[in-house]
Amino acid sequence: MDGLAQFEEEIWTREAGGGGRTRVIQNGRVLAKGGVNFSAVEGPMPAELMKTSLGTEAEYAPSDLQFYATGVSIVLHTNNPMVPIIHMNIRYFEMSNGKWWFGGGIDLTPHYVIPALVKDFHLRMKAVCDSFHANFHTRFKAWCDEYFFIKHRHETRGVGGIFFDRLDEASEGMSKEQLLAFIIALGDAFVPAYNYQVAQTQDLPYGERELHWQALRRSRYVEFNLVWDRGTKFGLQTDGRTESILMSMPPSAIWEYNYQPEVGSPEAETQAWLRKGVDWVNY
Amino acid sequence: MDGLAQFEEEIWTREAGGGGRTRVIQNGRVLAKGGVNFSAVEGPMPAELMKTSLGTEAEYAPSDLQFYATGVSIVLHTNNPMVPIIHMNIRYFEMSNGKWWFGGGIDLTPHYVIPALVKDFHLRMKAVCDSFHANFHTRFKAWCDEYFFIKHRHETRGVGGIFFDRLDEASEGMSKEQLLAFIIALGDAFVPAYNYQVAQTQDLPYGERELHWQALRRSRYVEFNLVWDRGTKFGLQTDGRTESILMSMPPSAIWEYNYQPEVGSPEAETQAWLRKGVDWVNY
Repeated sequence: MDGLAQFEEEIWTREAGGGGRTRVIQNGRVLAKGGVNFSAVEGPMPAELMKTSLGTEAEYAPSDLQFYATGVSIVLHTNNPMVPIIHMNIRYFEMSNGKWWFGGGIDLTPHYVIPALVKDFHLRMKAVCDSFHANFHTRFKAWCDEYFFIKHRHETRGVGGIFFDRLDEASEGMSKEQLLAFIIALGDAFVPAYNYQVAQTQDLPYGERELHWQALRRSRYVEFNLVWDRGTKFGLQTDGRTESILMSMPPSAIWEYNYQPEVGSPEAETQAWLRKGVDWVNY
Repeated sequence: MDGLAQFEEEIWTREAGGGGRTRVIQNGRVLAKGGVNFSAVEGPMPAELMKTSLGTEAEYAPSDLQFYATGVSIVLHTNNPMVPIIHMNIRYFEMSNGKWWFGGGIDLTPHYVIPALVKDFHLRMKAVCDSFHANFHTRFKAWCDEYFFIKHRHETRGVGGIFFDRLDEASEGMSKEQLLAFIIALGDAFVPAYNYQVAQTQDLPYGERELHWQALRRSRYVEFNLVWDRGTKFGLQTDGRTESILMSMPPSAIWEYNYQPEVGSPEAETQAWLRKGVDWVNY
């Protein structure tokens, strides 16, 4: 799709077991900076994961508890401010005590909200969800709004999508194979969904004003990822591979004190959409 | 000193008691973006402060416990990459149970380390410390290196200075008046110390290369403040005044995947200084 830049690739290994492959693209035609991170790590359960993975059972965990975690994360930042940022993550976690779960989601962060395109994105997410469970879309759309909320800005990171965590047989009444099929279908929906966004926006004109606003929106993306994103915080605080974790950072960002978009401007219009609970499917 | 830009000022109040004054300067001759934040807040002790302020005594705290906290924070980012970023904070905290303490420090973050200037800065910090207690400088210099360490980058934010927290009569064997005199002396040392840094560097030439490196260093500053700085995290997570807290953000920053300065370059030389335990006073 980009047609200009190529991904560079790094294979890395984790001392305690497993490893991954980080692919990064920079200075492309469409993509300013993007990353695709695959990891599959395993070994003795890290102490930092005990509490979050086992909750109150943590103190009874056998000392030889093993884990396996695998996932794909994608973040793409664009040159043209009219083209949205996109993020996808799908992941699977299991422990030697027999527990396992899936998590993930896809969410869209336009620098400028174009409602028809946001609706298209949400319709595609709904279609994937609806093929597997009648309540998936309602639950996972609301979960996404909650998760990607920048509390200190009182705004969402973007226009949402779907997000879910710890899906298992008990929570969903579905087998591991059925849930895996959902996760794979979500992964498969990513490329066509984003291709459509890019095709519809990549030739839209922009200038200094739009680039300035894009840089401000990118600083909010930085703030969310470094202050609130659980995966990023966990990775950085437990000595994960920093360059792989921070591939989600935008190529650049600016901070201006007390910036407020002009009333009635396209920027103010976008800002007004950055809230929870917008019914995009029925827009 | 700046001679071009003026501070804009905002007076704010805190719903539960007290308030502050935020002053921000942008697009100046020397200063690209800087802030001076004064606050004096009080009222019923917030639940989030209980654990950190009282430790194991938290559960026995009276329900009518009151607090008072005041401080000054300064962060100055510069246009010329040869001029260092500086940060100062001095603060005082007390509770209605009679406990009180002082905290603070000043630390320097050069984009390019010029050893003679770093030595000058540390000598000034040592002079302030030595007037009050023979062990202050050794302890507070080491504390600063520890505090401003970016763990996920395995590097310090800058070249340090001094940092301290919870100084009280019991910890220092000094009266409140003596400790206040130290805090005031530290505040008084800020302007001459930074004026000297600026005077020695503001006319040094720079170009695209230095601006690029400055933008990379600024992204590390963002990472430290949003991921590791206790005050920033606490403020953002407890619904503090976001624009006052984030006045510390640089005007702009860039992220490049896996960036490494060229071996033997001035950038690599600066990078090599970003470690704990450098004996700058005796450089």
